[in-house]
Amino acid sequence: MIAIAVIGYGYWGPNLARCVSQVADCHLAMIADGSADARGRAERHHNTVVVGDWREAVRSPHVSAVMIATPAHTHFEIALAALQAGKHVLVEKPMTSNSTQALILIEEAAKRKLTLMVDHTFVYTGAVQKIREMIDQGKLGDLFYYDSTRVNLGLFQRDVNVLWDLAVHDLAILDFLLDCEPIAVSANGTGHFGRLENLAHLNLYFSGGMTAHLNVNWLAPVKIRQTLIGGSRHMVVYDDLQPSEKIKVYDKGVDVVDSPEELYQLLVSYRMGDMWSPQISSKEALLTEIEHFAACIRDGATPITSGFSGLRVVEMLEKASLSLQQRGHPIEFNQLRRAS
Amino acid sequence: MIAIAVIGYGYWGPNLARCVSQVADCHLAMIADGSADARGRAERHHNTVVVGDWREAVRSPHVSAVMIATPAHTHFEIALAALQAGKHVLVEKPMTSNSTQALILIEEAAKRKLTLMVDHTFVYTGAVQKIREMIDQGKLGDLFYYDSTRVNLGLFQRDVNVLWDLAVHDLAILDFLLDCEPIAVSANGTGHFGRLENLAHLNLYFSGGMTAHLNVNWLAPVKIRQTLIGGSRHMVVYDDLQPSEKIKVYDKGVDVVDSPEELYQLLVSYRMGDMWSPQISSKEALLTEIEHFAACIRDGATPITSGFSGLRVVEMLEKASLSLQQRGHPIEFNQLRRAS
Amino acid sequence: MIAIAVIGYGYWGPNLARCVSQVADCHLAMIADGSADARGRAERHHNTVVVGDWREAVRSPHVSAVMIATPAHTHFEIALAALQAGKHVLVEKPMTSNSTQALILIEEAAKRKLTLMVDHTFVYTGAVQKIREMIDQGKLGDLFYYDSTRVNLGLFQRDVNVLWDLAVHDLAILDFLLDCEPIAVSANGTGHFGRLENLAHLNLYFSGGMTAHLNVNWLAPVKIRQTLIGGSRHMVVYDDLQPSEKIKVYDKGVDVVDSPEELYQLLVSYRMGDMWSPQISSKEALLTEIEHFAACIRDGATPITSGFSGLRVVEMLEKASLSLQQRGHPIEFNQLRRAS
Amino acid sequence: MIAIAVIGYGYWGPNLARCVSQVADCHLAMIADGSADARGRAERHHNTVVVGDWREAVRSPHVSAVMIATPAHTHFEIALAALQAGKHVLVEKPMTSNSTQALILIEEAAKRKLTLMVDHTFVYTGAVQKIREMIDQGKLGDLFYYDSTRVNLGLFQRDVNVLWDLAVHDLAILDFLLDCEPIAVSANGTGHFGRLENLAHLNLYFSGGMTAHLNVNWLAPVKIRQTLIGGSRHMVVYDDLQPSEKIKVYDKGVDVVDSPEELYQLLVSYRMGDMWSPQISSKEALLTEIEHFAACIRDGATPITSGFSGLRVVEMLEKASLSLQQRGHPIEFNQLRRAS
Repeated sequence: MIAIAVIGYGYWGPNLARCVSQVADCHLAMIADGSADARGRAERHHNTVVVGDWREAVRSPHVSAVMIATPAHTHFEIALAALQAGKHVLVEKPMTSNSTQALILIEEAAKRKLTLMVDHTFVYTGAVQKIREMIDQGKLGDLFYYDSTRVNLGLFQRDVNVLWDLAVHDLAILDFLLDCEPIAVSANGTGHFGRLENLAHLNLYFSGGMTAHLNVNWLAPVKIRQTLIGGSRHMVVYDDLQPSEKIKVYDKGVDVVDSPEELYQLLVSYRMGDMWSPQISSKEALLTEIEHFAACIRDGATPITSGFSGLRVVEMLEKASLSLQQRGHPIEFNQLRRAS
Repeated sequence: MIAIAVIGYGYWGPNLARCVSQVADCHLAMIADGSADARGRAERHHNTVVVGDWREAVRSPHVSAVMIATPAHTHFEIALAALQAGKHVLVEKPMTSNSTQALILIEEAAKRKLTLMVDHTFVYTGAVQKIREMIDQGKLGDLFYYDSTRVNLGLFQRDVNVLWDLAVHDLAILDFLLDCEPIAVSANGTGHFGRLENLAHLNLYFSGGMTAHLNVNWLAPVKIRQTLIGGSRHMVVYDDLQPSEKIKVYDKGVDVVDSPEELYQLLVSYRMGDMWSPQISSKEALLTEIEHFAACIRDGATPITSGFSGLRVVEMLEKASLSLQQRGHPIEFNQLRRAS
Repeated sequence: MIAIAVIGYGYWGPNLARCVSQVADCHLAMIADGSADARGRAERHHNTVVVGDWREAVRSPHVSAVMIATPAHTHFEIALAALQAGKHVLVEKPMTSNSTQALILIEEAAKRKLTLMVDHTFVYTGAVQKIREMIDQGKLGDLFYYDSTRVNLGLFQRDVNVLWDLAVHDLAILDFLLDCEPIAVSANGTGHFGRLENLAHLNLYFSGGMTAHLNVNWLAPVKIRQTLIGGSRHMVVYDDLQPSEKIKVYDKGVDVVDSPEELYQLLVSYRMGDMWSPQISSKEALLTEIEHFAACIRDGATPITSGFSGLRVVEMLEKASLSLQQRGHPIEFNQLRRAS
Repeated sequence: MIAIAVIGYGYWGPNLARCVSQVADCHLAMIADGSADARGRAERHHNTVVVGDWREAVRSPHVSAVMIATPAHTHFEIALAALQAGKHVLVEKPMTSNSTQALILIEEAAKRKLTLMVDHTFVYTGAVQKIREMIDQGKLGDLFYYDSTRVNLGLFQRDVNVLWDLAVHDLAILDFLLDCEPIAVSANGTGHFGRLENLAHLNLYFSGGMTAHLNVNWLAPVKIRQTLIGGSRHMVVYDDLQPSEKIKVYDKGVDVVDSPEELYQLLVSYRMGDMWSPQISSKEALLTEIEHFAACIRDGATPITSGFSGLRVVEMLEKASLSLQQRGHPIEFNQLRRAS
């Protein structure tokens, strides 16, 4: 039985606490939040110890793992203290405010042989798992592009812009889906109400020619969560808001023959075939994720969304922020660090 | 009665010919196309003279106006010849291959007091007209952004890339909707099957802070024609594929108060009101447009989509192409020329 | 503080228990369920007394109201015992298995001045409340029809057919929306897997000429919850599955002029106006309902979904069942009983 | 080359004329319409003889087949005259006003060895053809039900009610899809603006246990053309308004085991599998149909939608009308006549 403390009981913490209660191997040992209001809600919904200072959770001998759902700029301090106190750590996305911090956490966890995992929840959805499976099986063929629209009204964040709040989801999904590395990024954005961008577009260039485009916006009148993935064999539409049929796979594409005789002659033949929507697991992603966290702690295995995946996503966000400050000037990557 | 020759009877020409037949003031005097197959189709559907060489239409004393629906790179030569022969001209989008050509046509038409109009069809739809009306009435408030997704499978063009084929529609709409000028453009794109980009993203920066983002793609598994327009008072979703309710107006938004005490404190209150879908004219846009063409010829009035609007759109495409070659490096505009 | 016992912790009981915990005036005093498995779940999620026999809840001096979420055929026995023990009662739909039982409960509650309320949850949704408001304001004009499709795959019930399981929702909504009485009912249905119908259609005829049509089906491949309401001034589409825009109001209709000269000449002019989707409360209906239950207990007021509304709905189901056994032969109503 | 006269150039006639022009084997020899306005439109769009009296078409030695798109109550007189004059006949749906008339036409055509075909257009759509193919291949298993919603605003007809105008489409589809015979029908309906019903519901009972339910309405605020087909192996959703993916096939269903020990115990297990949307032909149905008409004339073959299919559909409409007058009282069928 793994004794878990949830640190931060604002927007996401309640989901962590609820799911921990539902996982067989886990025990919700403590909830920590600085707000009296949040503690009141926590006490009403859970039969556990509720404290005001996260240091109590880190210090407690009755806690063996912590889940950190506090504002992004506090992740590093809390996670580092927890690792130093010998606790396993699951930390919200974005993992840290910069890649240096992420690397320090990775090293601290490695040194102490502790599990360090990042809460890239979408990676654990039935939909994203199914897309990965299709890519692995070669169903999509060569990947051409990933094009995501992730917009809605609110919630405006106070300490991060829309890239760090929404684009982070797609970057985590891309990090999971693709084996290739990003080689450059270009981003544009606008803040209509202050210094933080509430609308941004991001282009990622991958080795091998694939590109990704992310459209994120806190100021849209409707909620859209739609991703198109173009491959040479099949193309996918992934709509996370569909109650069923979240994934549709299209047997569509083009075959192109360059005619040698005529310079400008491009002969394109279109393939218009069936559409297929695979049944996907409807299990709550967070539950799957916390079971995976528990299994990694138990077996000493590396999580799918390890510290390295958190680091890679933070590096992409850092470079994108740099580009955004230069109105879309493309920024190149050094090779991203992967776990040895 | 205006005697009209339609030059080019490929994809769009048949629509021009059909609509000309339906407009009271117009008479379909001739169809010209170099392809025997196209001429066969034209003869079957219309009771008019069908010829192989467009020069016959330009030369004919029985023709007073021509409509040019040939490949983009031929527009300039044909339009110039027609103007020089004293014919009024309606030319397909994009007006010409570059802005120098567009300027020459504008000057030629002005010199001869001929009507020169560009076929920016979307400008004449009930939907775009209604959006313009709402902007003029101040219903949307300050405009924050225009965000368009215009993707589908095919038709791959042979002589222009996806920007010149699809983004041109949004640029024409923007030119019509906005009174402000673009100050810079940034574009990215990829050609998966040769030298012409089949997927591109374009960011436009306008004086006054508004931005536009266009996502165009010939290689998407589904057809999407959706535009979000964010304003301070109302926001609009314009979905051209909806058979009815093409425009939805949302009484949604945010009010932001910067709290003076706390530096990072951003207080956002969300306004979640009704949605309203105005009834719009369902008249075919091309019919409205051709009636307007006829009225301009008759009255000597300047068309809504005059040569200058065609020129401005071509200039935006030129700058976007330049940026695209530099992987999104932003290109600034000199002031675009407006009719004096 | 009203001490409430939830009886039955299967599909719906957990929702009642959760909402009771969230209502200020209420206290979840007890949960009763005969199944050990259900009790285990109840204990994990709530900090309250959990018992196996519902009689303990009825008997307990620490309980002042019970909520009954057991199978339909047990409602009468439990509700009657609870009323006789002096407890207020909220009972699941359908209230009882027949109208005689419903009348007995009404009389028992009246005699003892106890609150008797039926859990017609949909009546408390923002959507249905808004429709009622529009009807009261005359926005819809004369009502022509109510046409509902309520289909999905499962859950096949064991003790009631699809009318008593799904049509009951629409009958409760109609009972709330309309002031007029049903005068006849006709129903058809089929049971593909045994004696209980899993697919049925029901037509209701109201005084004043309005009709209602309900299409209910447990064996449909997709979930549909769509209702069209036709009125002389406006028409409504109510789609309960839409995350937002659940209600759309159409300014559409026809005006008919019978031409006197020609017998068969029917001159219809169509009115095609705007569509409008009012913002509706997104508060959970069950929460609104339980607050109303608490208020009625406190103030001695008659609930919106009183025992009489439960009785009227059961009478409609009884007559519909009778018609269904006669392959749609219409059954007439005596006047339904309303509270004096 | 078959010389064809189109009789009636109102709503549907123009489509017939346009398609005849596009079929290789056919020649549009004449158009007849009593209205000067209609003749004006016909003359503008077609290069053919246009006359005012349908008798000219029937009499003309230059016409070998007629297509009748006049009001329903005139079909019989015109079709009979045409057959007696030795012309092949394609007649709009409903074929005639009653089954006696339909039988007379069938006999007349048989006697003279002429092709008599009914314009049940939907039968020739790629969607309906694909559903038939799936039924034939056993993909759907045993058929449980066919449930269609066919509603919109207008067009109110003057000489037939909504059953004869809209339900006729589904009856024609059912006649094509199913090999079993209807054994009884029940119908309800209301006329809000006069003697003709503008809203109706129809239940059909087939030998073998399958049922069909049709919901037709001229007074609905939105257009819906959706059909659910439930089978034991797969279920189908057919939405005619979808530009693509008109047909979705669901690998969903239930398996039921009656438990012997417990009387009321119904054990249902749900099968929730993939969804699949087959590519269907996008060829215009009317074109396919007219090619088939031409082929039947040429080869002397029996049309898919022969006079007998027209007769069966008219008989279903007759019985449904009878039931409707008796508020849904079920009417039984004698065996419908099939071609020997």
